[in-house]
Amino acid sequence: MADLGFAQVDVDREGRQGLPEVVYGPGKTAPQITAIVTSLLAANSGPVLVTRVEPETADTVLEAVAADGGRYDAEAQLLAWRPAPAGDFRVVVAAAGTSDWPVAAEAAAVASAAGLDVSRIDDIGVAGIHRTLAAAPRLHAADAVICVAGMEGALASVIGGLVAAPVIAVPTSTGYGASLEGVTALLAMLSACAAGLTVVNIDSGFGAAMAAHRIARTRKASS
Amino acid sequence: MADLGFAQVDVDREGRQGLPEVVYGPGKTAPQITAIVTSLLAANSGPVLVTRVEPETADTVLEAVAADGGRYDAEAQLLAWRPAPAGDFRVVVAAAGTSDWPVAAEAAAVASAAGLDVSRIDDIGVAGIHRTLAAAPRLHAADAVICVAGMEGALASVIGGLVAAPVIAVPTSTGYGASLEGVTALLAMLSACAAGLTVVNIDSGFGAAMAAHRIARTRKASS
Amino acid sequence: MADLGFAQVDVDREGRQGLPEVVYGPGKTAPQITAIVTSLLAANSGPVLVTRVEPETADTVLEAVAADGGRYDAEAQLLAWRPAPAGDFRVVVAAAGTSDWPVAAEAAAVASAAGLDVSRIDDIGVAGIHRTLAAAPRLHAADAVICVAGMEGALASVIGGLVAAPVIAVPTSTGYGASLEGVTALLAMLSACAAGLTVVNIDSGFGAAMAAHRIARTRKASS
Amino acid sequence: MADLGFAQVDVDREGRQGLPEVVYGPGKTAPQITAIVTSLLAANSGPVLVTRVEPETADTVLEAVAADGGRYDAEAQLLAWRPAPAGDFRVVVAAAGTSDWPVAAEAAAVASAAGLDVSRIDDIGVAGIHRTLAAAPRLHAADAVICVAGMEGALASVIGGLVAAPVIAVPTSTGYGASLEGVTALLAMLSACAAGLTVVNIDSGFGAAMAAHRIARTRKASS
Amino acid sequence: MADLGFAQVDVDREGRQGLPEVVYGPGKTAPQITAIVTSLLAANSGPVLVTRVEPETADTVLEAVAADGGRYDAEAQLLAWRPAPAGDFRVVVAAAGTSDWPVAAEAAAVASAAGLDVSRIDDIGVAGIHRTLAAAPRLHAADAVICVAGMEGALASVIGGLVAAPVIAVPTSTGYGASLEGVTALLAMLSACAAGLTVVNIDSGFGAAMAAHRIARTRKASS
Amino acid sequence: MADLGFAQVDVDREGRQGLPEVVYGPGKTAPQITAIVTSLLAANSGPVLVTRVEPETADTVLEAVAADGGRYDAEAQLLAWRPAPAGDFRVVVAAAGTSDWPVAAEAAAVASAAGLDVSRIDDIGVAGIHRTLAAAPRLHAADAVICVAGMEGALASVIGGLVAAPVIAVPTSTGYGASLEGVTALLAMLSACAAGLTVVNIDSGFGAAMAAHRIARTRKASS
Amino acid sequence: MADLGFAQVDVDREGRQGLPEVVYGPGKTAPQITAIVTSLLAANSGPVLVTRVEPETADTVLEAVAADGGRYDAEAQLLAWRPAPAGDFRVVVAAAGTSDWPVAAEAAAVASAAGLDVSRIDDIGVAGIHRTLAAAPRLHAADAVICVAGMEGALASVIGGLVAAPVIAVPTSTGYGASLEGVTALLAMLSACAAGLTVVNIDSGFGAAMAAHRIARTRKASS
Amino acid sequence: MADLGFAQVDVDREGRQGLPEVVYGPGKTAPQITAIVTSLLAANSGPVLVTRVEPETADTVLEAVAADGGRYDAEAQLLAWRPAPAGDFRVVVAAAGTSDWPVAAEAAAVASAAGLDVSRIDDIGVAGIHRTLAAAPRLHAADAVICVAGMEGALASVIGGLVAAPVIAVPTSTGYGASLEGVTALLAMLSACAAGLTVVNIDSGFGAAMAAHRIARTRKASS
Repeated sequence: MADLGFAQVDVDREGRQGLPEVVYGPGKTAPQITAIVTSLLAANSGPVLVTRVEPETADTVLEAVAADGGRYDAEAQLLAWRPAPAGDFRVVVAAAGTSDWPVAAEAAAVASAAGLDVSRIDDIGVAGIHRTLAAAPRLHAADAVICVAGMEGALASVIGGLVAAPVIAVPTSTGYGASLEGVTALLAMLSACAAGLTVVNIDSGFGAAMAAHRIARTRKASS
Repeated sequence: MADLGFAQVDVDREGRQGLPEVVYGPGKTAPQITAIVTSLLAANSGPVLVTRVEPETADTVLEAVAADGGRYDAEAQLLAWRPAPAGDFRVVVAAAGTSDWPVAAEAAAVASAAGLDVSRIDDIGVAGIHRTLAAAPRLHAADAVICVAGMEGALASVIGGLVAAPVIAVPTSTGYGASLEGVTALLAMLSACAAGLTVVNIDSGFGAAMAAHRIARTRKASS
Repeated sequence: MADLGFAQVDVDREGRQGLPEVVYGPGKTAPQITAIVTSLLAANSGPVLVTRVEPETADTVLEAVAADGGRYDAEAQLLAWRPAPAGDFRVVVAAAGTSDWPVAAEAAAVASAAGLDVSRIDDIGVAGIHRTLAAAPRLHAADAVICVAGMEGALASVIGGLVAAPVIAVPTSTGYGASLEGVTALLAMLSACAAGLTVVNIDSGFGAAMAAHRIARTRKASS
Repeated sequence: MADLGFAQVDVDREGRQGLPEVVYGPGKTAPQITAIVTSLLAANSGPVLVTRVEPETADTVLEAVAADGGRYDAEAQLLAWRPAPAGDFRVVVAAAGTSDWPVAAEAAAVASAAGLDVSRIDDIGVAGIHRTLAAAPRLHAADAVICVAGMEGALASVIGGLVAAPVIAVPTSTGYGASLEGVTALLAMLSACAAGLTVVNIDSGFGAAMAAHRIARTRKASS
Repeated sequence: MADLGFAQVDVDREGRQGLPEVVYGPGKTAPQITAIVTSLLAANSGPVLVTRVEPETADTVLEAVAADGGRYDAEAQLLAWRPAPAGDFRVVVAAAGTSDWPVAAEAAAVASAAGLDVSRIDDIGVAGIHRTLAAAPRLHAADAVICVAGMEGALASVIGGLVAAPVIAVPTSTGYGASLEGVTALLAMLSACAAGLTVVNIDSGFGAAMAAHRIARTRKASS
Repeated sequence: MADLGFAQVDVDREGRQGLPEVVYGPGKTAPQITAIVTSLLAANSGPVLVTRVEPETADTVLEAVAADGGRYDAEAQLLAWRPAPAGDFRVVVAAAGTSDWPVAAEAAAVASAAGLDVSRIDDIGVAGIHRTLAAAPRLHAADAVICVAGMEGALASVIGGLVAAPVIAVPTSTGYGASLEGVTALLAMLSACAAGLTVVNIDSGFGAAMAAHRIARTRKASS
Repeated sequence: MADLGFAQVDVDREGRQGLPEVVYGPGKTAPQITAIVTSLLAANSGPVLVTRVEPETADTVLEAVAADGGRYDAEAQLLAWRPAPAGDFRVVVAAAGTSDWPVAAEAAAVASAAGLDVSRIDDIGVAGIHRTLAAAPRLHAADAVICVAGMEGALASVIGGLVAAPVIAVPTSTGYGASLEGVTALLAMLSACAAGLTVVNIDSGFGAAMAAHRIARTRKASS
Repeated sequence: MADLGFAQVDVDREGRQGLPEVVYGPGKTAPQITAIVTSLLAANSGPVLVTRVEPETADTVLEAVAADGGRYDAEAQLLAWRPAPAGDFRVVVAAAGTSDWPVAAEAAAVASAAGLDVSRIDDIGVAGIHRTLAAAPRLHAADAVICVAGMEGALASVIGGLVAAPVIAVPTSTGYGASLEGVTALLAMLSACAAGLTVVNIDSGFGAAMAAHRIARTRKASS
């Protein structure tokens, strides 16, 4: 543990879980993020990530951190240093609509930085089921699928029935009215008729990527 | 209006809406149902229906009502006198799972008694999307589809995208936990990405049948 | 399907459902909307619509799309190209209060563009039941009624009892406190004592118009 | 105050509020009710009431209480001693459907026992608006209206717009699914577009009667 | 009825309910309010009120309406023409805390304009019960009490037990966290242990004033 | 820790927290309870308690446990061995109504068994505020007050303002409709205007007693 | 697909997902279960499972199904034929309390029948954190952890931070009051501060086992 | 009581509860706060506090209040005059994450000003349970612990099991999606498996400090 006063940085997490602590950006100032990142870079050798960072904060932090190689992915709002090289665990991030794009981007960027082999399929919501089915071959080839969908979240049910691989469903706050800012998609995914789906928090592309990372480690552990 | 004291029977509804008032059974005693049915049979010439009637109550009422021709459909829990002859408006009642059976049965029985040409397709939930797609030809042939589904209710989204006909979605209280006794399916169907779906109350096979009856009248009105 | 990278445009929907895919504006940039519209105009022959578009975005898109004949309805926030000629299916859009105006406008504009014969009746909420009843003759003449109401949504119950035609209820987020941003009207309409009402999502004038379009096709299908 | 150990009977309420404390039956044993009633009869001169009493408990209590003149109204589940003579404050209890009967009965019985001049109009729900309007003359003649309705509770909005007198709305737990055991009617009545409606707890015929009693006292106070 | 196109002004309400229709300001433009006010002033002789009007809109409307005598109460956000002379029905508006001030102001201003004899007691929340009790004499002298409280709304329960007069409870959105923007106070007031309380919508000072106006008419009706 | 297979009994809790683990009865069989109690009696020297035990289960367990001195309090549904001698920390358990009796009984019995000096005041709800105030001297003499109330839970706000001692509020599921089975009282107590109230789970007399026990230890720790 | 009339058995799921369709027992009659099981046994070669079967139904079905080797696990309420031989994927089912036992039993029994190498650790809730930590070595040795917890569900957060393997959290309906029948644990697990947890439906031991099965296949797929 | 017109300042609270009324800043103007503070300073001799004050308002008030010695704590948003000298009651404010900082700061500042001996431990959330355990010695030394946590609030359960002292849990609105702005942490803390935890309103650092102050007085009372 590194005690920064305002934060107890969990510098040992890399040893425990194979990835250093990921920093959640909102509510932290640029100097705080800089201090934490610096501490993590010093104490670990793996990827160092900060999620949900606004562009201006990102610029400030990138300049302030002494280490080179930091990169900001504006679409995913992710700051990353020392991303892991791509391994052979194939994750497909499938999104129902174009509005789910930012969440899918976060999932893909974090999973990539953690060393997974990521590809994306966008806009395959079930209202055009042939679009969904057209994606089936790519979905079947995945070691794990991250399914990102708002509104009624039905894409998760269909993909869950199509593939044998783990499916991690991410409800998004896309939609209005009865969509209840993602709660409807969340409840629907948890109630899905396809067996063995698992679900993470609303809009948590990050959580889904980390779940995929845990699964990928399982394979490594066995070899 | 016929004033029975405990009830003001809306005996003019047949003239106004093409079908006499349908009696909602729960909370009414057998003698009350008998009196209302007798009043409706006398004042109208069309079908007289009582929904959600327990078998014993049904027996008592059937004996007590003077008119012949009453019939009890145990599966649908429907009492009916003078069902309308089947017209040419084809309604398909599609249900996601076997647990949705009673609601689908009510929808089918009421729609039949109202003179629609009803057929049923059961157990075509989207976890086995090929089952759903196998039903597509029958769904395409329908003038209207009543889609009955619990849990996450995703069947409505898929059917809504497949067919051009009106789709009336009935959420059911099937499921547990996050299904919230039908509320999740209700919210999901209202949030569905397929455009132009409409939704009725949880478990209301009756409501869906009546909505289909209104649509069928539209066609008649135009000819 | 037309793959624009960020979107899989469902260009075949016109064939399947009688109307090309309608584009939901929020969250899409002007260039994205332009690309999708261009793709839809090329691949279809029917109306091309974009809902909930802000005026400035509308201006940009109208200029950028090569095809002529685009029109922006500011009240309904609708962009439309190649609206369908008015058919003979009469839809009345009835709204309870002046605050429900924007939702009623969207319903009317989309239904018109889809070829329905639309008229509007505004501000006939049930607190002045004589206002509601004064509208009865126009309501009776409709092939379908779209009923737009916020607060407690009681207009739907009254109209549902007055007319024999299909009634599509649209709850609006009008009201405050216990109105819960439209959820109360939504629940009330689903619980309505008038049989055969159907309901769409909160504020979804678009959804109601599409439901009416499905019903109108039913008549066409039969002739 | 009379201290019975398990209860501090508020024997002074008659002086303070014009009516002795009314006893809420559920959760109290027959001996407890007997003791409280005996205490209230001794310390006051006005009506003594116990609400929501099961028939068997009622029988036991009636036998055990020494005072004569106790009466049990099975429909309203009300035990009453020394009901007040009917005054000239006219309350109409209007109920939407036959299932609202028990709540309307409680309202009427309590209001009667408190000395109001009560009449009832049943089954005038707005799905048959002509039924509602047919009751208008009787509603106009009331000094106050208690409006009892479940499901979507729209009767309160219509009556609120029809009459100038105070309207006390009682939502009932009648209905299923989206009616949410009375919560929908409650929220709808609170959101009603008719100005100056007031609302009491779900199924609380008792509460509505007491509110009417407070209003009736206002008139007395002024004369 | 006066048909302004965008609005059906209920000009007959004065005859029906003793007060012309009150205009709800939010969502209406200054010209719309001007037109409605002009129409109401012409067709009625009583007070004409517009609630929840922002200062700038108020200025514009006051200038545009031809009739003299309009007045804007900035605290209550109320525009009023031809307020009724104060009658002899005494209403006390009691508020729990200083944050409830705006809602109490609206209640008082509307009640005053409707001809009630209004006085206010502020900041008598039950955490200092002696403050509440100190107000008892003034509360006892009222013909009706409007009780305005947020957070847990307990003031309504205490006042309901203190006075015999009608108590109209107005929950406010004051508070944070578990106060749920007024829903907690609303539910608490509906559940209050004091018998015969009635409740209006969250923050609806207007609704409470209109309820008091209905009660005041009762007395008049009887004399 | 004692491993019973189905349970890991936390036999060290007495050392850690001054009271052995208290056993929650529901869902455990009589033999399971017997085994856990036997294990706790052997490994500790303080009171051993089992909450919410049905009478028959209690009888079976009392017979099966070898140790003497077990006692069953039927009102509180509490099984206890080796209750602690009464110390000098005075806890008053104040309950709003007679229906709150069982929860108050559990709080009192557990607190007593834990060695607190407990007394009870029942039926002092705020609808009769003079009843509440009459209890003030006894409330002022307490070292801590446990306030048990259902419905709107306003008693907690009033007591919180009256006394300087810690007030632990226990919402109960007493009430109906808008009381939402205790959720309304829970939210109201958390929103209470009296500063420094704390709240435990609905109906958790046990939790309140344990909180009082923690506070009592504070004093001991200091002496 | 095998069409049994009342059910479309998805006999091809074994090919698609490596395990035949699992039958959900509730709402199905013994003859229906028998027919489905017979159909699945005939069309597949892998395990055939029926969940949540009451003992009497289980007996009837076991007798009626022609095939030998069916077994009923009463604790898990699972009927199973042809369980898969244990592979080398180690799943630990960790439960917080003894009341979570039935859900943990279902998870363990289904995972076992699907060929996973299952062990259980019970009663290690975080109120005795040393109990939780004592289980750490066994948790570290797992390829995946199924974490079963009700009430506040905190065990999932702690285990999620301890191990690097996939953690599948199952909220249970254990608890009362604010536990909201499992909804609180569900929401808490979804909000957990430990990264990469995934969650299944309330009480769905089955869903967690199937998720583990999907993960185990990932490893197989890679070898 | 001091009547300022807009406020009835409870100047006697110091005598009743050992601390003058604390002023809640939001919704009050600088002149209002100044008047109240002046009134409290004059009528009492103890600390005078205003919570949740914006910096600009604080500056204005500090200048306007005649008395010296006022201090603004920007982190805690607290204005204080005449803070009490530190006593010997040790309170530890433990926070789960850096985002909980402002709430922890309010708790610490108010408790300090009220004369408690406060220290803070930040960022010891249970996802790194070793961080939590490292804090155990400091937690054990506390007379009371204020536990501040958002998201799933699991820190309260763990600390509740670790220490014997009173634990006051403060849920925060930290988190997103299923955290429901603090409601999830609130429900989880109320459902916590550790016995004797108590809970205050979401984000109410103030409420927790006042609860600790009540407990500290208990000790004083006994000496």
